[in-house]
Amino acid sequence: MDGYCSSECLDRISSRWRAKIKSMNIKDIVLKQAGLARAAALKLALVPSKDKDAALKSMARALWAKRAFLMSENAKDIAAGKMAGLSAAMLDRLMLNEARVKAMADGILDVVKLKDPVGEIITSVKRPNGLRINRVRTPIGVVAIIYEARPNVTADCAALCLKSGNAVILKGGKEALYSNSAIYKTLKSALKNTKVPVEALQFIDLTDRAAVAELLKLDQWIDLVVPRGGEGLIRFVAENSRIPVVKHYKGVCHVYVSDKADLKMAEEICYNAKVQRPGVCNAAEKVLIHEKAAKKFLPVLAARLSAAGVEMRGDIAARRIVPTLKKATEQDWYTEYLDLILTIKIVKNVQDAVAHINQYGSRHSDAIVTSDHKEAAVFLKGVDSAAVYHNASTRFTDGNEFGLGAEVGISTDKVHVRGPMGLEGLTTYKYEVYGSGQVRS
Amino acid sequence: MDGYCSSECLDRISSRWRAKIKSMNIKDIVLKQAGLARAAALKLALVPSKDKDAALKSMARALWAKRAFLMSENAKDIAAGKMAGLSAAMLDRLMLNEARVKAMADGILDVVKLKDPVGEIITSVKRPNGLRINRVRTPIGVVAIIYEARPNVTADCAALCLKSGNAVILKGGKEALYSNSAIYKTLKSALKNTKVPVEALQFIDLTDRAAVAELLKLDQWIDLVVPRGGEGLIRFVAENSRIPVVKHYKGVCHVYVSDKADLKMAEEICYNAKVQRPGVCNAAEKVLIHEKAAKKFLPVLAARLSAAGVEMRGDIAARRIVPTLKKATEQDWYTEYLDLILTIKIVKNVQDAVAHINQYGSRHSDAIVTSDHKEAAVFLKGVDSAAVYHNASTRFTDGNEFGLGAEVGISTDKVHVRGPMGLEGLTTYKYEVYGSGQVRS
Repeated sequence: MDGYCSSECLDRISSRWRAKIKSMNIKDIVLKQAGLARAAALKLALVPSKDKDAALKSMARALWAKRAFLMSENAKDIAAGKMAGLSAAMLDRLMLNEARVKAMADGILDVVKLKDPVGEIITSVKRPNGLRINRVRTPIGVVAIIYEARPNVTADCAALCLKSGNAVILKGGKEALYSNSAIYKTLKSALKNTKVPVEALQFIDLTDRAAVAELLKLDQWIDLVVPRGGEGLIRFVAENSRIPVVKHYKGVCHVYVSDKADLKMAEEICYNAKVQRPGVCNAAEKVLIHEKAAKKFLPVLAARLSAAGVEMRGDIAARRIVPTLKKATEQDWYTEYLDLILTIKIVKNVQDAVAHINQYGSRHSDAIVTSDHKEAAVFLKGVDSAAVYHNASTRFTDGNEFGLGAEVGISTDKVHVRGPMGLEGLTTYKYEVYGSGQVRS
Repeated sequence: MDGYCSSECLDRISSRWRAKIKSMNIKDIVLKQAGLARAAALKLALVPSKDKDAALKSMARALWAKRAFLMSENAKDIAAGKMAGLSAAMLDRLMLNEARVKAMADGILDVVKLKDPVGEIITSVKRPNGLRINRVRTPIGVVAIIYEARPNVTADCAALCLKSGNAVILKGGKEALYSNSAIYKTLKSALKNTKVPVEALQFIDLTDRAAVAELLKLDQWIDLVVPRGGEGLIRFVAENSRIPVVKHYKGVCHVYVSDKADLKMAEEICYNAKVQRPGVCNAAEKVLIHEKAAKKFLPVLAARLSAAGVEMRGDIAARRIVPTLKKATEQDWYTEYLDLILTIKIVKNVQDAVAHINQYGSRHSDAIVTSDHKEAAVFLKGVDSAAVYHNASTRFTDGNEFGLGAEVGISTDKVHVRGPMGLEGLTTYKYEVYGSGQVRS
């Protein structure tokens, strides 16, 4: 281990030394931290729920106790962000005040209340040869979370990973480096008198993307990577990782309004899915309308959304009905606006809607509004997305709304976890086999 | 689609044209096939079990009916293999005769008997707001299998993927190109009068690794890659894939013999785990022995294994007890011999055994022999492997032995699937949400 910088030492390094260390040996620093995380993970996997919960409570208390420190460190990020010309919205996401520190601490206490999935016997079979084979839920091991901007992710993800028995390597964005580093130090020192190994929490105190690139090679030490942020970051991770990645690139969510829809319900669902919180991934970006419903429904919807400040775009058929719609381009069908913009298409039938969504959508969340259950089944079975809705807003795709508790993120991947990724998504299983001397013949 | 070569056209291309097409446009060929597979997957996901089973039966019948064709195409591979100087063992693995074709057809009929996992409601919750949220098992979509040598993989994997509702892209090794191509054509033509879309079965009729590299970029069309073969192939896939990969590099499996073991049972388990079929991934490569049991147990084990032709290596302590053991090197602890070689280490206790296995093992299958249940629990909880055994041979890690039916492979990854990967491992889930107009507040 000679020549490596220990994580305690990293903790003490002031920012003016960071540049020097980076140039010294990013690879060794990252490798060292991953090795410590792996060793800690093996210990943490055996820690009982009550001890993990005690550690989480200690973390929550420490955040509140150190709120002045957290806010003063955060002020450095805010100052740097202003210098760098971050938008007001970005600065707002970055900012910590007492209420937000309180919300972070409360978020950890919410995770304490969740059931620990580790140890659950998922299936148990007795084989003809007498072997008892239990499939038992276990932590994954070491999870790396690579994220941007909002500092609360540091606390949320630390709590979820530790509760599910995983060591976690956190790598935040440069905009929040002081804030994230302060939160990390606070959480780590809170672990000191608990049964959770301190090394189970690692924070890469480097802003360089080269550190991410090094991290993504360490498939011997790290079991899973979850990138959270813009599509650029996520594509960088997906293209450079040897470690399995759980991700979603974007949320291009649709609402399809059938000719058999209750049109008042359809209006409320479209309005909610677009307007209630347009900047999130489960907000609707497109509305598809059955050609028989369009003449009656589209003008009503357009009036309602216009009044809410939504810019509307449409295909030729939609613009024939409401000529004030802007002309939709091919690119519009692929685009996640994350804004008060909506594109509308008129379709022939449910099959047409399903085909459009499977071609242009992002496999996130899509809804049908119809009173015909057979038609709903065609949509729900046919649309290849993580969450498919009948007569409800797409906005419900969320760990809490689904009853899973807090989430590390949302997956539009098909393997390991799909949709909201909560505590169970942070586990795997092993087969425990109990015999009495069985050998294979 | 202009300029692409359709898959029907690919079917008709004789080998003398292959080189030319390859140089023309590997990327376009692979892209075209992946696109066809994706479109077919969306249709296949909706095909009921009975229709998938009928298609599988048709495939099994066709293999047997075309056995003369399969064997004559296989003879070309065998001839080329002899020219290329393949070992007798390799040629034997490659060879098809009537019995092996029959076994392939029977293997497909065994898959017919397995329960279709698609459509199973895994969990169902009713939320306080009235939303009913069902987590429903679905096919993954498009699965690519990249494999080497044995031609039966073509039929096995095709059957498992189609039964679980997935389109499959098969890419075999160059040694079996004629055989794999013949099996593929036979299976594909057998789908023609069934409800399973013919395009759900794709075969990359190119031997170039460049074709694999192109395939691994197509994360928009392919949902999962399963490499089966040597460590070199698997590392190439893991390092070059943007698509999630399920894999195992190797099986370095251990048996730990406690001082509290029934030593006769321990002898039988060690013998079986090493000798019964040494060339497979769940065979034991190392035996760890508690220092208090070694003096009595090691000479007995060494005599038994020597008589079976096993070369034994050992650490210093083991060689003090049985001086004829060869000296083990550091590299030995990491090595999967796949041969009648075994390395023996004397350890202080179960914690020592667990630490050794977690450091040097491959997270595949490891066993403890002991009559002490507490000690067994320490081992089973502490060893971070897909399958952990108490008083049984590691040789049972297998889809059939675990009651999962046939398997696509074994995973030592921690995410998506761990251990044998059967039909359920070829599925994912979606959330089907049923509302009555719910919007988010």
